[in-house]
Amino acid sequence: MKIGVVGGGQLGRMIGMAGMPLGMRSVFLEPAPEACAAQAGHMIKADYTDHYAIRELVNQCDAVTFEFESIPPETVEFIAQFVPVYPVASSLKIARDRWLEKSLFQENQIPTAEVADISSEEDLEEAVSNIGLPAILKTRTLGYDGKGQKLLKRESDVTNAFKELGEVPMILEGFVDFDSEVSCIAVRGRDGSQAFYSLAENEHRNGILHKSIATEDHPLQSLAEEYVGRVLDALNYVGVITVEFFAKGEKLIANEIAPRVHNSGHWTIEGAETSQFENHLRAVTGLPLGSTRRIGHCAMYNLIGRLPPESKILEIPGVKFHNYVKKAKPGRKIGHVTVHSADQKTYDDACDRLDTLIQNIL
Amino acid sequence: MKIGVVGGGQLGRMIGMAGMPLGMRSVFLEPAPEACAAQAGHMIKADYTDHYAIRELVNQCDAVTFEFESIPPETVEFIAQFVPVYPVASSLKIARDRWLEKSLFQENQIPTAEVADISSEEDLEEAVSNIGLPAILKTRTLGYDGKGQKLLKRESDVTNAFKELGEVPMILEGFVDFDSEVSCIAVRGRDGSQAFYSLAENEHRNGILHKSIATEDHPLQSLAEEYVGRVLDALNYVGVITVEFFAKGEKLIANEIAPRVHNSGHWTIEGAETSQFENHLRAVTGLPLGSTRRIGHCAMYNLIGRLPPESKILEIPGVKFHNYVKKAKPGRKIGHVTVHSADQKTYDDACDRLDTLIQNIL
Repeated sequence: MKIGVVGGGQLGRMIGMAGMPLGMRSVFLEPAPEACAAQAGHMIKADYTDHYAIRELVNQCDAVTFEFESIPPETVEFIAQFVPVYPVASSLKIARDRWLEKSLFQENQIPTAEVADISSEEDLEEAVSNIGLPAILKTRTLGYDGKGQKLLKRESDVTNAFKELGEVPMILEGFVDFDSEVSCIAVRGRDGSQAFYSLAENEHRNGILHKSIATEDHPLQSLAEEYVGRVLDALNYVGVITVEFFAKGEKLIANEIAPRVHNSGHWTIEGAETSQFENHLRAVTGLPLGSTRRIGHCAMYNLIGRLPPESKILEIPGVKFHNYVKKAKPGRKIGHVTVHSADQKTYDDACDRLDTLIQNIL
Repeated sequence: MKIGVVGGGQLGRMIGMAGMPLGMRSVFLEPAPEACAAQAGHMIKADYTDHYAIRELVNQCDAVTFEFESIPPETVEFIAQFVPVYPVASSLKIARDRWLEKSLFQENQIPTAEVADISSEEDLEEAVSNIGLPAILKTRTLGYDGKGQKLLKRESDVTNAFKELGEVPMILEGFVDFDSEVSCIAVRGRDGSQAFYSLAENEHRNGILHKSIATEDHPLQSLAEEYVGRVLDALNYVGVITVEFFAKGEKLIANEIAPRVHNSGHWTIEGAETSQFENHLRAVTGLPLGSTRRIGHCAMYNLIGRLPPESKILEIPGVKFHNYVKKAKPGRKIGHVTVHSADQKTYDDACDRLDTLIQNIL
């Protein structure tokens, strides 16, 4: 079986690697000349809108998926004329647009922050008077890792905010007070079957994911599954989806959707019976979903900008190193490390040693 | 880091796959046109004795290893002139020769079957009178999977046996009565550090490995580690080694050595904190060894000659499928399946269902 993947970054790389044991081959469509997925399959170097290249892709693939949501919806629609492509184009469209995303949650009775659609300075003023401050102004599309947004603390922050973010469509989101940020990685098969991983508790630094801990018997696990299950069915979704929530007491407040495998699910490579990458491939190709059961204690740390010395990482018992073989650049995700152990003491020790190691390279 | 691998079969494929997360690239030297390792690295299609191709291999690699022991020792010696190559040539030489192998065990006070070196019909007659019947006559070199050997039950079997096996150097091995066959997969680093996996209990069918179960607290585990540790140090070994034993009561009788990753260690991909493939690469490249701790319950089944329908395999919870993407042929190993679960009930159910599934394709 050959799988087409639009995008050739580390998520594509890990999709390709997950397919190999199953005998699947991956073909990546990616314009970047040094794409790190190249090692995990065949690379077609071309723009995402290059119809000639897309035809080359679909001609050799049984199904197509993508590793990020910022690809043109027209590309997905064009591919869909030739081979099955999952997740469906409509879920991409929703995930790319913060207003549609929030509306999807609300239509499915899933709590969100207070939110308003903003098309003008007047809309913004009205929203501020309804929602109050502090609040966050975000562009509807193209924002990620803290980009395309502005925190409004006081009236004076509001004055030029609409201009500053480019006078594009935006949303204003009320401030949410929360205990922790969690993400729910779930998968839905072509037959509608669903499976959910243990909630990941996420810590961010400078707006980028720093650490994800696979929680054990999280009190909000079943509520998260209830909410994400509704989203999966509403979208008639196929593949892995990620929904990020704020957790506050006994409540979950939905924040956003990623219609793909997700950084906060990398722990599933070692820590679950079937990884998010393998389950995504199983779903996309119509195979039965694999067990999402967590095995042992697990946490993932991103390696951003620099890698610690390899031997320092590998000498820690219970630690698994993932080097994306990407050029190091400040703020760039170039690898991750997973702590995985059946034994609580080994796990705690490894986390402590990794904390120190990563602290030292920052 | 680039690793050269002599041989391009499924062991090479799995070495290549294990290297990817670590950012290692593999280059395979293999004459077969449709080698299944091709997907996991770069392939140099050439004979194992082709010095021009070997130069091409060593010029781009930081270290070289091999996936099987039947390569010419001259090849290993030639490679060693340019880059580090592990395991060392002497261990290959011993593993290729049943007499040297048995002598190594005996020199290190490790019990073996009664054994005699045979160079002629007269040697055979004398050995039979010393060892008695039944006994097994084996060629010293080039035997595997039941080939190159003959069971001698009675005097009449002895008459033409030396001729039948080709009048090459042989050994006569006394018959060993045993409870079970176990293998000990171990690894030794460049710095002499050692690590051992849980013993695998192996079941053969028609002389080919059918099933390996990762044992839990096997009563002979520490004895096996003591014996294998002696072998590792005696050979000044670097990399993964496999020693096969017969277990009888409280005794272990050493049978043979494989100086490489081994079929009975495939369960370590899912069932151990570090797989045999990753630990082999760590050892060969001088990195710290990874934890060999077993996680959960684990068993591996070989898929020989035919694959069951993929969806039938994948619908069993706790089952992982490994398709080598090799042409199906009777008696050929074309894949394996690992049952892996933290939960005893899921594990038992999966084993039962797999037994039935594999029975149905035989």
